[in-house]
Amino acid sequence: MGHATRTGDGWLTGTTVVLAPEGGAIAAVDVRGGGPGTKETDALDPRNLVQKVEAVVLTGGSAYGLDSASGVMAWLEDRGRGVLVGTDPAHVVPVVPAACVFDLGRGGDFRARPDASTGRAAVEAADASEPGEPVREGCVGAGTGAVVGRLKGGVGTASAVLESGITVGALVVANAAGSVTDPETGALYGELLSRRVEYPSPAVHEAARARLAEAAARNAPPPLNTTLAVVATDADLTRAQAQKLAGTAHDGIARAVRPVHLLNDGDTVFALATGARPLAAENPLALNEILAAGADLVTRAIVRAVRAAVPVDGPGGLWPSYEELYREPPLGDCPGSVT
Amino acid sequence: MGHATRTGDGWLTGTTVVLAPEGGAIAAVDVRGGGPGTKETDALDPRNLVQKVEAVVLTGGSAYGLDSASGVMAWLEDRGRGVLVGTDPAHVVPVVPAACVFDLGRGGDFRARPDASTGRAAVEAADASEPGEPVREGCVGAGTGAVVGRLKGGVGTASAVLESGITVGALVVANAAGSVTDPETGALYGELLSRRVEYPSPAVHEAARARLAEAAARNAPPPLNTTLAVVATDADLTRAQAQKLAGTAHDGIARAVRPVHLLNDGDTVFALATGARPLAAENPLALNEILAAGADLVTRAIVRAVRAAVPVDGPGGLWPSYEELYREPPLGDCPGSVT
Repeated sequence: MGHATRTGDGWLTGTTVVLAPEGGAIAAVDVRGGGPGTKETDALDPRNLVQKVEAVVLTGGSAYGLDSASGVMAWLEDRGRGVLVGTDPAHVVPVVPAACVFDLGRGGDFRARPDASTGRAAVEAADASEPGEPVREGCVGAGTGAVVGRLKGGVGTASAVLESGITVGALVVANAAGSVTDPETGALYGELLSRRVEYPSPAVHEAARARLAEAAARNAPPPLNTTLAVVATDADLTRAQAQKLAGTAHDGIARAVRPVHLLNDGDTVFALATGARPLAAENPLALNEILAAGADLVTRAIVRAVRAAVPVDGPGGLWPSYEELYREPPLGDCPGSVT
Repeated sequence: MGHATRTGDGWLTGTTVVLAPEGGAIAAVDVRGGGPGTKETDALDPRNLVQKVEAVVLTGGSAYGLDSASGVMAWLEDRGRGVLVGTDPAHVVPVVPAACVFDLGRGGDFRARPDASTGRAAVEAADASEPGEPVREGCVGAGTGAVVGRLKGGVGTASAVLESGITVGALVVANAAGSVTDPETGALYGELLSRRVEYPSPAVHEAARARLAEAAARNAPPPLNTTLAVVATDADLTRAQAQKLAGTAHDGIARAVRPVHLLNDGDTVFALATGARPLAAENPLALNEILAAGADLVTRAIVRAVRAAVPVDGPGGLWPSYEELYREPPLGDCPGSVT
């Protein structure tokens, strides 16, 4: 996984690339938002030709930002990675599915958007990263300009090793039209379902509401949003099973964001399966634990994205962060800082 | 809406019918569970011929119980209601989409399932009901034999009038493989996201866990489950908009049940739109409030289904109710009683 982050001088955007092991991974997608911006998603229909993909791109820049996938394609082509389309091993077409979030103008300049060079920088960062290396979260990569409701959004990740030994991980870009917090209490929806919560104190919540109202009065209402996710596993899934996983992972978005999947959300989940670990052949329900984990990890990754985000106050608007508003002791540096 | 409830002598099942106004309603469906049992759902694809339906059937009895829809068809045919297929007004084919929950053997007799006569009784009850009349909830109709996790499930409803004046209502049959309660605290997931909750006291939760463990030891694990819902509105929706509504309503199931949409859930949502109230033509996002409400009402209806359910201890198993386990003062009669 790698990020390319573009900030300053009108910019507040970026691109994130999930790079599969060489040879590719089984991939699938489920689009549930009413305003999606995507590229190469039809190729992922399990009935269609392409079996594996080398990379998935999540990007800012709305539909313009999908150009970042072209930079990832070029990088893969240079390495002969992709679908072989002739006898010359250099003749490949890398299928690079991509989805975008709306962040146009968040840095001040409507035209400051990821392009092929941003995609290339992100895939180079992914290639340079070590497996198991901690992933940068918060306002980085495709989450750089992300917002959730009136709060700053960003990138979050979570992973788990299941009882079967199968690993599942989730990467999200949280940029939703709906809210991640309960307006009555200030609690994060995504935390309410996973543990006994301490609700924020009324004084903290009241101050947060005042600050958010101030931000809302200053900012234009964001016209479009989107939560993107990649759920990846080392299980050996068919393409259809991966598609089921992409679909149920949307439940994890629904538990963290309310309302969601609206006409102005382009919510899209990709699933990747590297195939190292077979499902238990004797159990027809073996997929269930992966489905349940995929949804739960997406919820957790959204919570982490929101908690890792840092506030932005710039030419593209005032976006407080959840930690700034609700963390009672003052907050130190966080890995997602864009200051 | 009408229920037919079959209990005693090996029975614990039933059928629920939502009857549209004469002339029918725009209808759509979204199937998200991995083990659905449905009839006439392909006709609802917005690309396909049939424009409106006269009734939707939710039923117990697994795939066998889909026969109940035939009784509803016969009742409609008697009245000349359905798709006209010739010049004789009696020559109609009523399209009656149906979906089933798994409850085979819950009353003790694996073969005691709804059939055409059960469907006819339910549609007669629907026809006899007055608009606005309170709907019976709990262990009635298709919810008679329903269970959620280890708890007794049932039927629940909820409705709201939106700012636009549009009404949205939801009817659910809660019968999920996943849980509606947080195992750590005993709180209902569907209540955590809608208000500040008082968690059950540790002593009550501990006693509940012991009772559920006792029930689980006695019962065979239920092999299949399913949450069904009908979301209905008086808005003027296209068939595609109704399909979007059916899809986003699944978010309401995801917020109340965890995990959900598994291979052994057949989760299916129907949407009905009677068309009396147009959407605001100048607002491209006018559908959003209906989508958000649909999901929220499904969550609320699931909570009501679980809270209205009464315990069952019979030849098909021991199924405690949430109220029995968690309500600290003793519980009086409830409308869903099957005793």
